[in-house]
Amino acid sequence: MNDLAALKADLEGLAIEDNPQIVRQKSRDFFWYSPVLKRQLDEVCADIVVTVTSEAEVIRVLRACYAHDVPVTTRGAGTGNYGQAMPLSGGVVLNLADMNKVLEVSTGVVRAEAGAIMSTIDDAARPSGQELRLHPSTYRTATIGGFVAGGSGGVGSINWGGLRDFGNILRLRVVTMEAEPRILELSGADLHKVSHAYGTNGVITEVTMPLTAAYDWVDVLTGFDSFAEAARFADALANQDGLLLKEIAPIAAPVPHDYFLRHQKFIRRDQSVCALMVAPFAMDAFSAFASRFGGVEILYRSDLASDEDKQGLPPVYELAWNHTTLRGLRVDPTLTYLQVLYPFPDHVEKAVHLAELLGDEAPAHLEFVRFDGRNTCFGLPIIRYSSEDRLEEIIRIHEDRGCPVFNPHCYTLEEGGMKQTDAVQLAFKKEADPKGLLNPGKMIAWENPDFDFSSDQTYLFPGLAR
Amino acid sequence: MNDLAALKADLEGLAIEDNPQIVRQKSRDFFWYSPVLKRQLDEVCADIVVTVTSEAEVIRVLRACYAHDVPVTTRGAGTGNYGQAMPLSGGVVLNLADMNKVLEVSTGVVRAEAGAIMSTIDDAARPSGQELRLHPSTYRTATIGGFVAGGSGGVGSINWGGLRDFGNILRLRVVTMEAEPRILELSGADLHKVSHAYGTNGVITEVTMPLTAAYDWVDVLTGFDSFAEAARFADALANQDGLLLKEIAPIAAPVPHDYFLRHQKFIRRDQSVCALMVAPFAMDAFSAFASRFGGVEILYRSDLASDEDKQGLPPVYELAWNHTTLRGLRVDPTLTYLQVLYPFPDHVEKAVHLAELLGDEAPAHLEFVRFDGRNTCFGLPIIRYSSEDRLEEIIRIHEDRGCPVFNPHCYTLEEGGMKQTDAVQLAFKKEADPKGLLNPGKMIAWENPDFDFSSDQTYLFPGLAR
Repeated sequence: MNDLAALKADLEGLAIEDNPQIVRQKSRDFFWYSPVLKRQLDEVCADIVVTVTSEAEVIRVLRACYAHDVPVTTRGAGTGNYGQAMPLSGGVVLNLADMNKVLEVSTGVVRAEAGAIMSTIDDAARPSGQELRLHPSTYRTATIGGFVAGGSGGVGSINWGGLRDFGNILRLRVVTMEAEPRILELSGADLHKVSHAYGTNGVITEVTMPLTAAYDWVDVLTGFDSFAEAARFADALANQDGLLLKEIAPIAAPVPHDYFLRHQKFIRRDQSVCALMVAPFAMDAFSAFASRFGGVEILYRSDLASDEDKQGLPPVYELAWNHTTLRGLRVDPTLTYLQVLYPFPDHVEKAVHLAELLGDEAPAHLEFVRFDGRNTCFGLPIIRYSSEDRLEEIIRIHEDRGCPVFNPHCYTLEEGGMKQTDAVQLAFKKEADPKGLLNPGKMIAWENPDFDFSSDQTYLFPGLAR
Repeated sequence: MNDLAALKADLEGLAIEDNPQIVRQKSRDFFWYSPVLKRQLDEVCADIVVTVTSEAEVIRVLRACYAHDVPVTTRGAGTGNYGQAMPLSGGVVLNLADMNKVLEVSTGVVRAEAGAIMSTIDDAARPSGQELRLHPSTYRTATIGGFVAGGSGGVGSINWGGLRDFGNILRLRVVTMEAEPRILELSGADLHKVSHAYGTNGVITEVTMPLTAAYDWVDVLTGFDSFAEAARFADALANQDGLLLKEIAPIAAPVPHDYFLRHQKFIRRDQSVCALMVAPFAMDAFSAFASRFGGVEILYRSDLASDEDKQGLPPVYELAWNHTTLRGLRVDPTLTYLQVLYPFPDHVEKAVHLAELLGDEAPAHLEFVRFDGRNTCFGLPIIRYSSEDRLEEIIRIHEDRGCPVFNPHCYTLEEGGMKQTDAVQLAFKKEADPKGLLNPGKMIAWENPDFDFSSDQTYLFPGLAR
């Protein structure tokens, strides 16, 4: 603890928290959606939390931590589900939540501090008729820096693809973890160095994102007699080029009825649902399309709902993406989920096949997205969890059918992602974090360059055994 | 001419033109892009032109023409290329160009009189940060009503598909051709009754269209050593979900150098070009993508061009769609063109194959569009015209390779379109134009219900022989 005492002395004047309960709270994200991560990471805890309010303070923290060899795990709102913000080696949690100013809104562009909440950014953009292209279901709590560092896409991905795509992040300011931290401005192909790197190779302090036209999106729930019909409708809808939607999510019965408690009154238990956000001026055309498609029951639309009906209803984006899972967990804490890609052009067929194969052990939940120019879908099926072995088996069942799983039961970049070394991110870590102090244990390529991704073994960070 | 004299008396007080030269001028559209239509239609002429300024005047004209059995062909700016506005049976040309007010701009929506010029609509929408989704290359001259009645898509179709797609037209006001003309408001699935019907079954007086975010689009010309490379780049670019572009058109050498005279200084004669409109904030990401793709030479970008360089340059959209053909025609009046669809997913392969097969007889020109949710391309190849037989042969060469031709050398709805009866439009004509007085000769299903579309014969309207 000598190092820590010296560090604290160096950081005098900054907002340092060492109350164990608060430190523990700020050392946790939403990793507990996974029973596997819960077992592995439940005891993980930082030594102190430093809350900064400026880039100068970030630099001060990194300089001091570098000098004292103290690990730093950067945190926004801690809404990640892969344990992105869990400080596996203890040390400092660097909390950017108070670095949250929206700095500039212009045509097509917003610049904000990394800790700015996404809905706050949109509040600032809306007077100009604009909003962010993409956001997670944690729109009202998650930070833009956390989304860039640990997210991949979400609401809006049906129009714009994911954060990995050229153009969905415009510019990042990053502070390096060196004796004398540098400030770098990244754009173009360089953005890939730090986006979705979990803060393992730099601290993002400022984010420039594209904006798109803002609308008062209409929340719509449509009901179907089978999941297959819901999925086919979603696919057909996604391929309607002139219909502007922001969200298309088919969800299998009985999830909507059983877990969307506030909307339960609109939904039969045997009804699969397609949850939608539709541009208000597109509602006539949407209705015409739905009635031509056939078999679509409009259960709810926010533009026609009475104030009484709308009372207390969460927005549709808080029924979708990982809020579907969250609503399930609130009713049944034994649930968990997967993240699956169903590749185009057989995505619907594959998703329906897997849904039928796994039945109520894995009620289907799809999220339609644009992916390399085509409309396809990710899946976030609810899993009625029984054991880690069975979970692995369910993952294999998906992969054996050509549906890659971005495993949310692993906390490393590689295992939760493409299951291979990202040479660009590794090279940048060597340059920007030579001591390997940033978010230790998350980048296998750094921790164990010889790790065999083709083995069935999950990587276990030695630091966890400290 | 007795009928006509009586009609004129009935229309007293309206703006009636009977000066033969002006009537002839207003009886012509851009049909002369086609040597076949030029031969067939060059003598076509109305008897009088009536220019109206209100819906009440439209009703007055239709009521009187119905009473006197005088045909009415509605005209906007007359920029169509299929002879849409050619009055095959003479009679009245109903000119809506002075019914051109932009009535209302709100979030996502504009309402305008049918004769409003598209660029004028955008001028009215731009203070709210909005613009039309789609426009033809004749943006600065064409009317919105003419586009809806006789167009199919254009600039912006890479994002929104075509006018036929649900959501790209929101509402139309239509006046019927009956003893007592009715005013109908069409929306949803009903829009199909009159959109792309050439005014054969109603007169569109007012149009409500969706708007999207407006940007100061950057005009970019990129150069390639071969057409195949230009086409592959265009395809890859179209599939970049995060890169916002409004126009992607690969054009084979030597068309860009030989016909884009104002841009000639930027282009080598052996260079194929991809003409682009890119959102200004996407330029960094675009450049990163282009340099990763490789082999892309940036010949011109308007955001970096000097005022001297920009002097007198037309915008990129006036190099694309049928302005490519028009620029060719200005240099070599013997040229013509085709309209081809290259179906997904083999669109690039098919387009490149046909370009290589036909060589300099048909220099390729592609327009990338979204079509049923996929990015594919239309072609508007320049044709170095030799004879009608050879033109037919070139069309067959395309069709034999699975690439349907929307034949711009035919003036009927069916032959220029899907080559089959449109039952909805026919039924609506029976209701809204029982005497068949609206734009006679353009709907085969009405004129000759027994016409065999599978024969190799072109339909010839008997009225032409009058």
